[in-house]
Amino acid sequence: MGTETERKFLVVSDGWKAGAVGTRYRQGYLSFQPAVRVRIAGDQGYLTIKGPPQGMSRPEFEYPIPLEDALLLLETLCHKPLIEKTRYRVPYGGHIWEVDVFEGENRGLVVAELELPSEQTPACWPDWVGAEVSDDPRYANASLVQHPYSEWGP
Amino acid sequence: MGTETERKFLVVSDGWKAGAVGTRYRQGYLSFQPAVRVRIAGDQGYLTIKGPPQGMSRPEFEYPIPLEDALLLLETLCHKPLIEKTRYRVPYGGHIWEVDVFEGENRGLVVAELELPSEQTPACWPDWVGAEVSDDPRYANASLVQHPYSEWGP
Repeated sequence: MGTETERKFLVVSDGWKAGAVGTRYRQGYLSFQPAVRVRIAGDQGYLTIKGPPQGMSRPEFEYPIPLEDALLLLETLCHKPLIEKTRYRVPYGGHIWEVDVFEGENRGLVVAELELPSEQTPACWPDWVGAEVSDDPRYANASLVQHPYSEWGP
Repeated sequence: MGTETERKFLVVSDGWKAGAVGTRYRQGYLSFQPAVRVRIAGDQGYLTIKGPPQGMSRPEFEYPIPLEDALLLLETLCHKPLIEKTRYRVPYGGHIWEVDVFEGENRGLVVAELELPSEQTPACWPDWVGAEVSDDPRYANASLVQHPYSEWGP
């Protein structure tokens, strides 16, 4: 088991884009509480279990699984809609930021995540990063299945 | 992915017991629909996903996981009570029968399962096997978490 400490921000400009290389993610959930996630990243499948958030941290168990299994699980057993996004890894200030550009029913949403060793780790924010949404449950990927961005009100 | 074809019977006598060697199972569920099961069998952990039953068959995805992860998942994230049982593998008539002797909140329940390549595979039943309960949802292990045998009425 690992513990995931993640801070999440809205992205307010394209300043992160130059030279960034993205990986296609397709993911879905077998369960929301606890979250049991099936993900295909590039051509690798993963099965991930996340416990309830404790502050900005969250216990996480992740296992690689065959691509063929992941495809079948996504198509037949995961809640719909699936999450489709491209994840870009962007180095900034000694950390790697992950910028997720959502597609499908969450098109228009772009968020940046920063994974840190602990909640106390200092970090500086690039100028393409806007409001922090770490504590806003609507931005959790599991929530984006149940209430996709395209259905949010103005 | 495999497909599991399983027939399940009540056990009506101890005729299966002579020489049978058992393995301790401890298992719980992260989700019931679809079933996401964490199991410790002896000292090996497993994570298993089962799709909805289609007749006597059921799609099944199983992955070995570290014992330490399985222990943590059972203690912290699985629905309670956990299923505790000893599974005995009993050869009979060219097949291996699995006899599950339940403990804890399901103490008193003993069922025998026969896994077959398909629903059409012929098999003969030993005389310690009683009524077939393959179609009775109460005997599914996931149901035994939600409605343990000790709480069933007379």
